[in-house]
Amino acid sequence: MLGRFVTVDGGEGAGKTTQIAFMRAYLERRGCRVMATREPGGTPLGEEIRALLLGHRHGGMTLTAETLLMFAARAEHVEQVIRPALAAGCWVLCDRFTDATYAYQGGGRGLSLERIAVLEEWVQGTLRPDLTLLLDLPVPTGLTRAGKRGPADRFEREEVEFFERARAVYLKRASHDPGRCRIVDASRPIEIVRTEVETVLAEWLERD
Amino acid sequence: MLGRFVTVDGGEGAGKTTQIAFMRAYLERRGCRVMATREPGGTPLGEEIRALLLGHRHGGMTLTAETLLMFAARAEHVEQVIRPALAAGCWVLCDRFTDATYAYQGGGRGLSLERIAVLEEWVQGTLRPDLTLLLDLPVPTGLTRAGKRGPADRFEREEVEFFERARAVYLKRASHDPGRCRIVDASRPIEIVRTEVETVLAEWLERD
Repeated sequence: MLGRFVTVDGGEGAGKTTQIAFMRAYLERRGCRVMATREPGGTPLGEEIRALLLGHRHGGMTLTAETLLMFAARAEHVEQVIRPALAAGCWVLCDRFTDATYAYQGGGRGLSLERIAVLEEWVQGTLRPDLTLLLDLPVPTGLTRAGKRGPADRFEREEVEFFERARAVYLKRASHDPGRCRIVDASRPIEIVRTEVETVLAEWLERD
Repeated sequence: MLGRFVTVDGGEGAGKTTQIAFMRAYLERRGCRVMATREPGGTPLGEEIRALLLGHRHGGMTLTAETLLMFAARAEHVEQVIRPALAAGCWVLCDRFTDATYAYQGGGRGLSLERIAVLEEWVQGTLRPDLTLLLDLPVPTGLTRAGKRGPADRFEREEVEFFERARAVYLKRASHDPGRCRIVDASRPIEIVRTEVETVLAEWLERD
């Protein structure tokens, strides 16, 4: 059975972690080997970079530094975790990937999308997700949900407009790449979202 | 009086730290405001990135991650420290800068120099050192000196050939850019090197 690279992306409070847990269980019940991972992070170095990125100490971090740190963690993750797992036939379920860089650093903060594309090509080569589930929901709904989880990290403290710009980039990318991306309305109850996500996975399982 | 951006680069054990202390004292005696800094590092975020880069925990770090981390730290350093200090009329003395990336990641590890140039342009724009002192000495001499300083960091544990390739890139870059770079024979006694370095600085002071 082939490995598949599935990324789950979307705004704050969209339920990515919950759905990835469901996806893992669903795929394992069908005999797939599954590795769940996340960005930024996913390796020992990447998790330390994640702490730098999400922490409050470096609130004034330059956009360039932030973006290069994201791709440094991603380089490590792609080479040391994602590619080997795919080569071993695993389904890789990744909580956020490069779409998030386009959305947050590009849409949210205004970094040129061309610069992101240059780093994407360098760090990933031709590797792209086979399937991306965009868990989409209105920004205020998501922020309210995320706010219930405890102290906000450095990104969660941004203004609503920042997240609106990020959401717009997510939706634009997903609608321009329907072969890879599925937009899932994540404002609905968890179990409804779960059913839709599992239906998408079932289609992919039939392709093998 | 104008600020000047002076970088001091070269192999392990070349005496950069010692000469920068002399340079600082020399310039301050002549009424210059001086800020000494270093790479990777020079900012709170940069020093944390330095710890990731030089530490032993991430011995298997990919070359791409290493290079992006170097430039992430540099982006922060350039925007938050170097440019403001130059704008305030300081002489900035920097222990290693982008020549080191060309030498170590490019020459030493074989990363394409074109990729380094893309990141250099992005992170620095048109900012280049006004003056670079390349403290050059034979690799075995430098490694013997550096070995006396305590446990080796992640770079100091590389093979001799790695440092020979780095030295070759340093020398090539310096010889191709004589307006910016001065090659100083750092195998001589510290006081002789100091005299030559101070002579170079005196020429620059006369230009103001």
